[in-house]
Amino acid sequence: MSFLVFVSMTPIGKGESVSKYVAKVVDVIDRSGLPYVLTPMGTIVEGESWEEVMEVLKKGFEEMRKECPRISITMKIDYREGKSGRIRAKVESVQEKLGRELKTLKG
Amino acid sequence: MSFLVFVSMTPIGKGESVSKYVAKVVDVIDRSGLPYVLTPMGTIVEGESWEEVMEVLKKGFEEMRKECPRISITMKIDYREGKSGRIRAKVESVQEKLGRELKTLKG
Amino acid sequence: MSFLVFVSMTPIGKGESVSKYVAKVVDVIDRSGLPYVLTPMGTIVEGESWEEVMEVLKKGFEEMRKECPRISITMKIDYREGKSGRIRAKVESVQEKLGRELKTLKG
Amino acid sequence: MSFLVFVSMTPIGKGESVSKYVAKVVDVIDRSGLPYVLTPMGTIVEGESWEEVMEVLKKGFEEMRKECPRISITMKIDYREGKSGRIRAKVESVQEKLGRELKTLKG
Repeated sequence: MSFLVFVSMTPIGKGESVSKYVAKVVDVIDRSGLPYVLTPMGTIVEGESWEEVMEVLKKGFEEMRKECPRISITMKIDYREGKSGRIRAKVESVQEKLGRELKTLKG
Repeated sequence: MSFLVFVSMTPIGKGESVSKYVAKVVDVIDRSGLPYVLTPMGTIVEGESWEEVMEVLKKGFEEMRKECPRISITMKIDYREGKSGRIRAKVESVQEKLGRELKTLKG
Repeated sequence: MSFLVFVSMTPIGKGESVSKYVAKVVDVIDRSGLPYVLTPMGTIVEGESWEEVMEVLKKGFEEMRKECPRISITMKIDYREGKSGRIRAKVESVQEKLGRELKTLKG
Repeated sequence: MSFLVFVSMTPIGKGESVSKYVAKVVDVIDRSGLPYVLTPMGTIVEGESWEEVMEVLKKGFEEMRKECPRISITMKIDYREGKSGRIRAKVESVQEKLGRELKTLKG
């Protein structure tokens, strides 16, 4: 199965510029070995199951909360049975429908 | 600490009316014993930690996926250290600021 | 038609307690005359069209941005043709499926 | 100012594969001339104001609703005064903090 998650974690009350804290979460995701892509609004991670992805996100959250007493998290999850590799396939499918290349993800 | 989660799970490809499937997730939340409130757009659950709330949501997801091969989930999480009972306190705080009662939650 | 929106606006960089700013947005929604309900995680508003609801939310945003240079907004929209009054009906439908009353909205 | 929006529109009740409908919304965004990036979980668009971006998204919604009687929309907005070009800058800022390149967006 494919468990695809868009996630964004934002500290509240740590000033207007928060990329220093965001970087710690992204670091955990990058080191997890799961396929992911960093976007301007959050990170998209793909795993085989709820547990596989959530374990990584919890670790990221634990890193951030060491320094941040209030955190706002947004997640959007797209679960689909019997599929995998959707972190690439979904974008390709939209491009195919339109018959042209769009502004999208690297390599 | 207070780990407050707004969650909505929607099956994709099971027709336009999905409350039959949504009810199974709400049933799991209702039986969990955690404080919650059902809203027209999702359910809000409060727990002491990431694990406590996520364990319940995972159970709800497992119920839904027995019948639904594709599921879209939205979560918005508000974590705050050293607080509790925010499922009531947040609404009261906004009403206080405005100095009047608003359309809001029961009991 | 029914255009049902869950919305949450949070200032970033204005400290950890933000209900003072949130109250200004809720005030605009309350005065709009549209059916709404305030929840611990955001406000749910119902209108007849994209324009009707978005006009109110834009006004709320304009109030908040007078004082807040950075704002994070989450919206979840459920549009359905040929329906109305879903701010009540959706919750009732879930309760009916389960055959019992749940913790839910006032009035 | 910079008004950065992550948006995802999903038809409910049109089967499990929905990229045909999603492509119509992405087509509107692509033709709008606004900076955007298509991701596996939604599209990120940047504009100068609420109106500029919302006008485009409303057009996309109007295209989708010609064929879809029920639509679920998720939006996450990051508004910031006195900035622009954040569709690139935010990702670069996280990479800088970590001192290495991450899996991210195309040139």
